[in-house]
Formats: sequence, C-alpha cells, structure tokens
Amino acid sequence: MISFKNDYSEGAHPRILKALMESNFEQTEGYGEDGYTIKAVELIKRRIGRDDVDIHLLSGGTQTNLIAISAFLRPYEAAIAANTGHILVHETGAIEATGHKIIAIEVEDGKLHAAQIKSVLDLHTDEHMVKPKLVYISNSTEIGTIYLKDELEEISRFCKENNLFLFMDGARLGSALCSEGNELELSDLVTLVDAFYLGGTKNGALLGEALVICRNELKADFRFHMKQKGALLAKGRLLGLQFVELFRDNLYFDLAEHANRMAALLREKITKGGFKFLVDSPTNQLFPILPNRLITELEKKYLFHVWSKADADHSAIRLVTSWATKEAAVLALIEDMARSV
Amino acid sequence: MISFKNDYSEGAHPRILKALMESNFEQTEGYGEDGYTIKAVELIKRRIGRDDVDIHLLSGGTQTNLIAISAFLRPYEAAIAANTGHILVHETGAIEATGHKIIAIEVEDGKLHAAQIKSVLDLHTDEHMVKPKLVYISNSTEIGTIYLKDELEEISRFCKENNLFLFMDGARLGSALCSEGNELELSDLVTLVDAFYLGGTKNGALLGEALVICRNELKADFRFHMKQKGALLAKGRLLGLQFVELFRDNLYFDLAEHANRMAALLREKITKGGFKFLVDSPTNQLFPILPNRLITELEKKYLFHVWSKADADHSAIRLVTSWATKEAAVLALIEDMARSV
Amino acid sequence: MISFKNDYSEGAHPRILKALMESNFEQTEGYGEDGYTIKAVELIKRRIGRDDVDIHLLSGGTQTNLIAISAFLRPYEAAIAANTGHILVHETGAIEATGHKIIAIEVEDGKLHAAQIKSVLDLHTDEHMVKPKLVYISNSTEIGTIYLKDELEEISRFCKENNLFLFMDGARLGSALCSEGNELELSDLVTLVDAFYLGGTKNGALLGEALVICRNELKADFRFHMKQKGALLAKGRLLGLQFVELFRDNLYFDLAEHANRMAALLREKITKGGFKFLVDSPTNQLFPILPNRLITELEKKYLFHVWSKADADHSAIRLVTSWATKEAAVLALIEDMARSV
Amino acid sequence: MISFKNDYSEGAHPRILKALMESNFEQTEGYGEDGYTIKAVELIKRRIGRDDVDIHLLSGGTQTNLIAISAFLRPYEAAIAANTGHILVHETGAIEATGHKIIAIEVEDGKLHAAQIKSVLDLHTDEHMVKPKLVYISNSTEIGTIYLKDELEEISRFCKENNLFLFMDGARLGSALCSEGNELELSDLVTLVDAFYLGGTKNGALLGEALVICRNELKADFRFHMKQKGALLAKGRLLGLQFVELFRDNLYFDLAEHANRMAALLREKITKGGFKFLVDSPTNQLFPILPNRLITELEKKYLFHVWSKADADHSAIRLVTSWATKEAAVLALIEDMARSV
Repeated sequence: MISFKNDYSEGAHPRILKALMESNFEQTEGYGEDGYTIKAVELIKRRIGRDDVDIHLLSGGTQTNLIAISAFLRPYEAAIAANTGHILVHETGAIEATGHKIIAIEVEDGKLHAAQIKSVLDLHTDEHMVKPKLVYISNSTEIGTIYLKDELEEISRFCKENNLFLFMDGARLGSALCSEGNELELSDLVTLVDAFYLGGTKNGALLGEALVICRNELKADFRFHMKQKGALLAKGRLLGLQFVELFRDNLYFDLAEHANRMAALLREKITKGGFKFLVDSPTNQLFPILPNRLITELEKKYLFHVWSKADADHSAIRLVTSWATKEAAVLALIEDMARSV
Repeated sequence: MISFKNDYSEGAHPRILKALMESNFEQTEGYGEDGYTIKAVELIKRRIGRDDVDIHLLSGGTQTNLIAISAFLRPYEAAIAANTGHILVHETGAIEATGHKIIAIEVEDGKLHAAQIKSVLDLHTDEHMVKPKLVYISNSTEIGTIYLKDELEEISRFCKENNLFLFMDGARLGSALCSEGNELELSDLVTLVDAFYLGGTKNGALLGEALVICRNELKADFRFHMKQKGALLAKGRLLGLQFVELFRDNLYFDLAEHANRMAALLREKITKGGFKFLVDSPTNQLFPILPNRLITELEKKYLFHVWSKADADHSAIRLVTSWATKEAAVLALIEDMARSV
Repeated sequence: MISFKNDYSEGAHPRILKALMESNFEQTEGYGEDGYTIKAVELIKRRIGRDDVDIHLLSGGTQTNLIAISAFLRPYEAAIAANTGHILVHETGAIEATGHKIIAIEVEDGKLHAAQIKSVLDLHTDEHMVKPKLVYISNSTEIGTIYLKDELEEISRFCKENNLFLFMDGARLGSALCSEGNELELSDLVTLVDAFYLGGTKNGALLGEALVICRNELKADFRFHMKQKGALLAKGRLLGLQFVELFRDNLYFDLAEHANRMAALLREKITKGGFKFLVDSPTNQLFPILPNRLITELEKKYLFHVWSKADADHSAIRLVTSWATKEAAVLALIEDMARSV
Repeated sequence: MISFKNDYSEGAHPRILKALMESNFEQTEGYGEDGYTIKAVELIKRRIGRDDVDIHLLSGGTQTNLIAISAFLRPYEAAIAANTGHILVHETGAIEATGHKIIAIEVEDGKLHAAQIKSVLDLHTDEHMVKPKLVYISNSTEIGTIYLKDELEEISRFCKENNLFLFMDGARLGSALCSEGNELELSDLVTLVDAFYLGGTKNGALLGEALVICRNELKADFRFHMKQKGALLAKGRLLGLQFVELFRDNLYFDLAEHANRMAALLREKITKGGFKFLVDSPTNQLFPILPNRLITELEKKYLFHVWSKADADHSAIRLVTSWATKEAAVLALIEDMARSV
C-alpha cells in the first residue's frame, strides 16, 4: 500500500539522521540550552531577517497551540477560529482543557476575514461573556488554502485596531510559503502576526515546531509555560539539531517545494481527468471529488482519507503529499485513476 | 569538559539511530498506531510477563507524570509525595496546573513509608480538605536510593487497604532494577503498583518513557488524555522504534547496568579516598561530600551540580553516570580527585 | 420606571424574610450541615416523591452549572448544548474554565432533539476529538419554550442508549412546570434526567438553586467539588431556610404560577394588539415583535431588553414577569402599548 | 448547647435584616450593578479614605481567595503561605484547582516574615520550578494572632523590592483591626498590601466579603473572573445592602469590638484559672490548653473544636466569640469551667 494519508508517514530527511549520528556522543546541556538549539534559533532568526523575536522549539502542533494560546491569554479571554481550525476539531479540546473557550466562525474556505471577527466582537460586550482576545488562523489552512497578502494584512490591521493577538498555526507553513500564488514571506509574518510557528513534523523532521513570538508582551517567561506543560525535552538537542539542518541552507523550503510539486502534478492530472475539487488548494493537500466506485478501487492500493460525501455517488477524498513523496507513487496513482475511470 | 551532570547529556544508543536509519522511508500510521509502537508494547509486555497491562509511549518524565496523575484523579483528589519528589520540586507546578494539590511528606532518604502516608490520611477527614488518593514514589529516587521489596510491599498493602492509587515514577527505573541490592523485578511492579513507567530518556533513548498501567479502572480512554495534553506524536514511530530496540533483547538493562557499574567504580574510589556521601545510593547518582577547594579544582575540567552545603568548608556534589559514560572519564575524574586532595 | 427586565429584580418572598428574622439568633452548624438545610432537602425529596436522590443547595445558576458539569465529566469529555444554552452564551466560559469543551448545536426554539445529538456523536469518533458525554438542556429554555414529555423522553432514551449524562438547567424550572401545556412532573424528571436543579433565585428566593442528582454514579463526594469551587456557604442556613419556606407547602409553585399568569395576561393582550412573537413561549419570558417607534415610547417608562432586530422597523423585545410582578404593572404596560400604537 | 465553635453560627445583625425587609420590593439592576452595591463601595472607600481602589463584593472567603489569587497570577506563578494558611488547609485545594501551587512555610504563630519569604525565593531560580509571585497572609491569622505594623511593613517592603504581590485574607479583619495591640488602620492596608478583603460573613453579615484591590495592574476585568467562577450573584443587592449597613456608620467595627470584648473576658478568666494558651491571641479566637477531663465536662453543655493534643492529659481547644456572642454565655462558660476544675 502506498500512503497519501498525510505528510508524516515517513521518518526524517536523511540529513537530519546524519546529523544525529555525527553528534551522538557529544555531551550537551539539557532542556534546550544546548548549542544546537541556540544555533537553530540563530539560523531561523537570520532567515526571518529579524533578531527581535523569541524562538522556542516544541514537539508538535497540538502542544505548540495549547502552550502558546494558554500562555498568551488571561483566564476569561477566548480565541476565535474558523470552524475548520485544527484547535477546534482535532485536538481533543486541548485549548479548552487549559480553560479557554474557542469561538467558532463558520467559513467556506478555511480562512477568516476581518468582518467575521468583527461580528464576534460585536456580540461580546460585557463580563457575562468571554472576552475574545486571540485570533487563530492556519496557513496553509486545514483544507489546503492559503492567505493572500492583503487578506492577512486586513486581519492584522483589524487585530491591531482591536487589541487582539493574531496567532498563526504553521504546521504546514512551509507548504504555504512555497505554494504557487503565495505572496507572503517570513519577514512579513513578523510584522503581521504576533506569533506563528514553522512546522517541522510535517516538513521533514522527526518531530518539532519552531514557535516564533514576535510581540514583546508575549515573550516573558515562556519557558516556564513549556516546562509546566511537559514540553521541555531533556535532550532538547534533538529538536535543535533538526532545525539546524532544516535552516542552515534552504532545506526547509526545498522539502516544502517538493511536496507542493508532487501535489501540483496530482492536481493537474486529476483536473485533466475531469474531476472537480472540494476546494481550490495550491498546497500539499488536495480534495478531489471522485465517484465512490473509483474510490473503492483506489483503496485497494492506496491509503487516504475519505473526507466528505458529495452526493449519493461521489465523495471528496484527501490526498496529501510530503517531502518524501516519490514521483513514481504519484504517477502510479494517476495511472490507476485513469485506468479505473 | 567532561560532564557528570546528568544522564541525558548524549544522544541515543547507536542501535537506536541505526533502527531510525533503516526504517526511515517506510510509511507508517501516525500517532502511535504504527507497527513499531505495537511491537514495542508487545516486547515490554513479554518482558514484564503480563499481557493484561496497558502501555503507552510518551516523550518525557514531566509529561508522563502530569498526564498520568491528572488522568487518574478526580478534581478534588490529591497526590502524596516525598518532599524530594520530582513532581514537587522540578516540574514547574505541572501537577497543580492540572488542578491537583500535592501533599508533601518530609523524608530523609527520598523514600515514603506507610506510616507517613497514614498520618496524611488521618489529617484529611472531610470535604474542607482535599482527598488524598494517589501515592507518588520514584524508583530510583531523586537522590539515588531504591525501594527494597518489603518496603514497596508495605506501601502497596497500605494503598490497597486505603483505596489509594500507587504510582511509580520510573525515569531511572532501569538503574534501580539493575542496582546492587535491588530485590524487585518488573513482574513484581505489576502486582505492587497501579502504574509505573520505564524511563527511556535517561537510559539510552533520544526521548521516551513507557507508561505501564496495571490497574484496570485507570486504563480507559488514556489516549484521549495524551492527545489533549499534546503528547501524541504524529510520528509515534519515533518512540516505538526506540523501545523496540531497547526491549527486543536485554539492551535496556545492559545500558542501566553500565551506568551503575560506572557509578560503582566512582563510589568505590571516592570512599577509598576517605570521603563520605550525603546518602547511600546504589544507583547511577552519587552525592559525595567534598572539600569546597577540591570542588573548585574539579570544576575546571568536569561538569556536575553542587547539590547542597555540608558545612563551611564542604559541600555535597551530584555525580551522574549513564549508559554513555566512558570508563576513561571515570578514571580521569578519580585520578584528578586523588591528585587534588 | 417599572422593570420587566428579568425575574430577579426584587428581593425575596416575604415569608422568606420572616423566616430569616425568626431564626436569626439560633446557633446552627455551618456549611450546609444545619437543620434547615437538612429539612429543606427532606421537603424537596418528599415533593419529588423520591428518597434516593442527593440534593445540594447552591448560590446561583452559573455556579451550579459549572460545579455539576465539571464534577460529572472526566477531563476529555465534553458537553453538548443548544446554541442558545446559557452555559454557551452568558457564563463567561465558566464550563471551559473547568477544562471542558461545549459542543454547540444550532436550534430554532431553544430545544435539543435526539437526532441532533446523534449527529454530534457521529462526528466524534476517536481520541483526536473530545468525547461528548453530557447533554445540557434548559427547561424552560433561555427563550421561554418548554420540553414536552415525549420530547424529553426521546432525549432521555437516546442518552441512556448512548451512555450520555442528561443534565437539566432548571433556573426557571418552576415556571416551566407550571406553564400551560406542561406535561412533566418533578417525579418524571428523576426518571428522565441524571441531574437537574430547582431554581430559587428567579422564583422568589434571595439566592439559591437546589441541585438534584438522580444518577448514583454522579453522587460521590459532591460536597468536595462544592467546597473547592467556593460554593459551600459558611451560613448554609441561608439557603436551607429559603428552600424550607418554598417547599414546606406549595409556595414554590404558587410563585411560578403567578409569574406565568402575569405573562399570560401580557401575551393575550399583545396578541390582541395584533403583534407577533419571536417564539411561542408559555412561560414567564415573552418575546413580542414590536415597531421600533413603540419600543422607544415604552422605554420611557419601562425597563426591558431589546432582544433582536426583526426588520428595519421592528425588533423583538424580551418581557419577563416574576413572582413579584404586580398585575397593575402589567395592566399599565398593556395600556401604554395600546395608547402608543 | 451553647456554641463557641465559630463566628458564623448565627444569622445577621438585625439592622441587616431590617434593611432587607425595607428594600424588598424595590426593583434593582442585577449582578452587583444595583444602587446598594454602588453605595456600599462608596462607603467602604470613604472609610478607607481612598478613592483609587477597586472594590468587589463576593460571597465567602474561599470564593474570594480563589478568584483573587487566580486572577492575579499567570499560570506558572505560585503563592507563598504560612503552613497554617486557610488556602493551604481548609479550602479543598481550591487554589491548586485553578492551576497554582502554594508554597508552604512552616511557622509557629501563623505569621510570615520577610526572611522566610526570601528563603523561598532563593530556592526558586529557574523555569524548572514555579515562580513565587504572591504572598498570602491572613489578619487575624487562622490561630488568632495579628500583624504588627512593622511586621507588615517589613513584608510589604520585601514584596515591593522583589516584585511580589501581597494579598491579605481578611475573613477576620474586623477582629484584627479592633484588637488590643493592633497598630494598623484600613488606610495603612492600601499602602502596604496589593489587595485585601473585609470579611462580612464572620462579622455580622449573612454572607459577603468586600475585596479591595489596591494595585492598579490587578484591577482590570475583575468582574469577568467573578462571573466565570460563578460569583456574580443575580441579586447582588443582597451583598450591597449588607455592606451599606455595616459601613454607613461604625457597625462593622462595633461588631468586631464586641466579639473581641467577649474573647477578652474569656481570656482573662481562663488565665486567672491558671490555664495557659497555645498561642497568644488578642482577637476572637482563643486556644486554651485544658485538662482533658475538663474538656469532656464542658462538651456536655458547649460546642467547640478540640484543636490539638498538648500532652497525655491536656488538649488545646478553640473558643470563638462573635458579634452575636452573649455575655451571659461567656459567663456561664467561665462559671462552668471554675466549677469543674
């Protein structure tokens, strides 16, 4: 079976394993105070082009979301998210477990807009309701779409005017920034959002997300939050080393570009095959709508999620490519689709 | 500088890195549902000699402690721990952050005894106080001591009689079980405690603790707790693979034995040098009391913690050995101590 | 100004104040262990016709909701509620602050139905999502509607079949049970729901809600939860005394009937005036849709909430009657409406 | 049986009940926005002599402690308290339930000193431990002692220098401020502590504590915290009215003085009887050490707590007087003691 189920099916990019091997018997400080972590932070700062941010390495997306959001908010403050937001759907109430409500906004394309956020603010007027304080967005979104520059600028402006924090879940930020049509650069993010992260787990690392805190008032004592939630790894070098590899040259973006290229190939051929998509995604997640009969056929050789029912005879499936997806696998899938139609 | 600061200064045992390499491009399920994790769980069960336990792989000690304890307790229930207990001292209030009080018992040797636990119960009589419900012990303890079989049996019996859960922090369980004088086997633990873990981070893994839940009523829905606290790694194979290596033969215990042997060598020579120890530890942590002048001398070449002041001119230091400690390093330290006295 | 803003504008029924006076210098036990509280519990049990329930007196609705729901749920379990539910809208995230997500269901009439709950269950399939475990309903609902017997039976059956707890917010239960068309009795509730409360604050008490826990597994150690959340009043007699007065004869229901009668009078006249209602409410909350011009006129002499915009020229207002509403006030309002049209 | 068990055995001062009666049918705003609450806040501010404080009325001590402390602290910050502190002993882990550790300091007389707090700070040095941030003291303490002016000034200075919040539990502040030897005035507290409360429940009210927040940075959005924890009473007038009565003249202090006078009478006679006290208390709680035989005798006619064992034949008991204690009751107790010796 070949899997298009997600972008964390394989291990890590070989360079990461090589770096682990080579450094293995070096003795380092623990808990992220080792030289590799320090180096990784430097490299990421250089890449972003800013030295005035704080960077912390964490193990995974849910962990990063819950620690960041609970660190940023006071007890009565709430987050706002699109109803497709990962924190709302697939994190087992991790944010609520830290005491915070998430206010859901119904969206079509996975993206929030200022007008929607405003309508939430308008409804929350006094101490009988939570105080909306943080806007959570994902880029790319959970359904593969990306924020255009003016879209992000609009939200950013609104958040600044209304004293809201803007937090970007970047579990798939690499794919977003390397996608066709993307207009954002890392340096834009520092200006436009208050915190974001560069996902490693879904882009070639064994595990790891690099959280970048841009807003000064959100920086203080962040390592206390990490330790309290069980996120300071004794062998923090494991995270440091990986981000050194990903950012000491262009590897992080090369890997994301590969994933996108594989997805583009799939998209092109599926479109040619006459199929439509649930949503127009330029990144490494595709949601083609296929006949159920074809899906059943494909399931014999491929792993993927059946996402939603389209009509009695059709469903949308999710196909995910990654840094490790082989072109041969993509071509095989395309061929099998063509044959089975 | 050579470090005796802790047992997580190096990377992982080479066999683990080799296994990572070899499996790297294999596609697996995520979140601990991969074949390696399944295999690791089987191997540990076989080693314990029991099939009726639940085993979960987590990233670190604080994470394991906070998820297990908060999963096991109702909101008004409290844990009892020795004042030296890791959860009381070095986890940034991680347990309290999940809502639970820890009741501290003052001890000399890092170990709890039934009579002390009883005195806590006697003081907690009604709903104006928390309800003590879980006893937290560490083996080896935070100061290197171990529980003898009758000591653990006594606590276990008391806990059963008083409907208390008994939870063993096993961050250094390998060293404890392989230490001279140890009378406990893994199979005893299943009978005597309700949950315990086999620490990997401090015994040759990059990261990872294997939590063993023995008591049936504590097993339900544990993965929900893990996910909610950010502990389900997308690439769960990373944990699975490591425990497969550690338990597919005797590696886990070989590594612990090595650490203990290195400590024994240090202990023997330091004793011969005429120095005393803060506490009598048969495991991989030693607390020799040395002249401050000697400590200053050693600090030029070695890294270690100065633990506590003994008198005006002497202090206890902590020396930790590990699976990766080289005999040459131990001998060098011994020689330097001899020379400097 | 005459207020129709809510049902807690006045103090308490005179009999309650009289009882406070008469008992004032009696010395009693604290924290709800006094004779009055014990008596109140007995009287309510007798009224319900069941002795096998646990009853606790609390100070207010939000307090009761948050303590009950957090006591009933494990950390990863969630509540389900109508989007109009008080816990979702007007309790400042009190439930989430105890760590639990609330899953909102969009409804028209404030009421949940089994099919809607089922659709939530169908979407929550594994440990990446919270586990829906408790269904929260209000009777009367936040928009004045009531559950018919077969409606409640249907939900109850579904909850039992799916191992869900069913919890009824009874802040306005008196009004619901005394309303025209009501088919439920207190004794039905014990069979159909797992816990509910008899609201006192909105039905003639100074403060106080009587929580009735019907399901055995939810009863244990409930007073620990109350104390931990700051809900055990030192002078618990204050709550006990009030519920003795309300339940030593028919006072609780007499007061609710008065409130309903006043509302019925309003409803009849407003209907005759040719106005429609936002929703068909048989209880003490009415939501007439009036011309904005008329609303402005009425606001000169009366206090009430403008609830929602109906069209450019009309809005729904909320009129609430209570045990203390004077018929003269109702007649004055009716007259003023007639005059102003 | 006559009770000396506590200071909340009776109802409320008659003037409070009279005020409830007279205002009963007045319609007011809910949730503490009524005229009585506003008036009470004004009167207390005037009494304190400061207008730049925020005042909130809450229902009881545990509720006030848990809301204030959790509002003031960030998640990783901890409170420091004497081991006798109410929050450590008799609040069912209410503070920990909001996520915060309390660091206990062993004391003899119920009081903290700067040197002890310093020793705690010295031990908490990095992110592996909680960050001590708030010092909790009680005045009078849980064993009846009071803070002298220079003692409080010393703590206050230390807290300011070390950026710690200083919070005073004033459940029995009336008794403390009216006690012989007291050197503190309300106006001093505003200068010396960051927040404190004036306990009503134990000084003549049915329920109610007036929290005074002095430090600007602690004031924001406090009502959100109150609502979220279930502490905003719908009929907030109930609290407002009581504090209006207590503070529109000298009633609050007159009541405390009466309690102290009754205690002084007891103290004098018990001392004359040749008995010693566990601790030297100038307030309304006394801890005489009596022969067990005498205690058994007294228990036939009086209610009180047996506090602790002194030796094989003697125990300390706790006698509490209140605003409602009758001199005749005190004299009877004294007589019975004299007769029984």
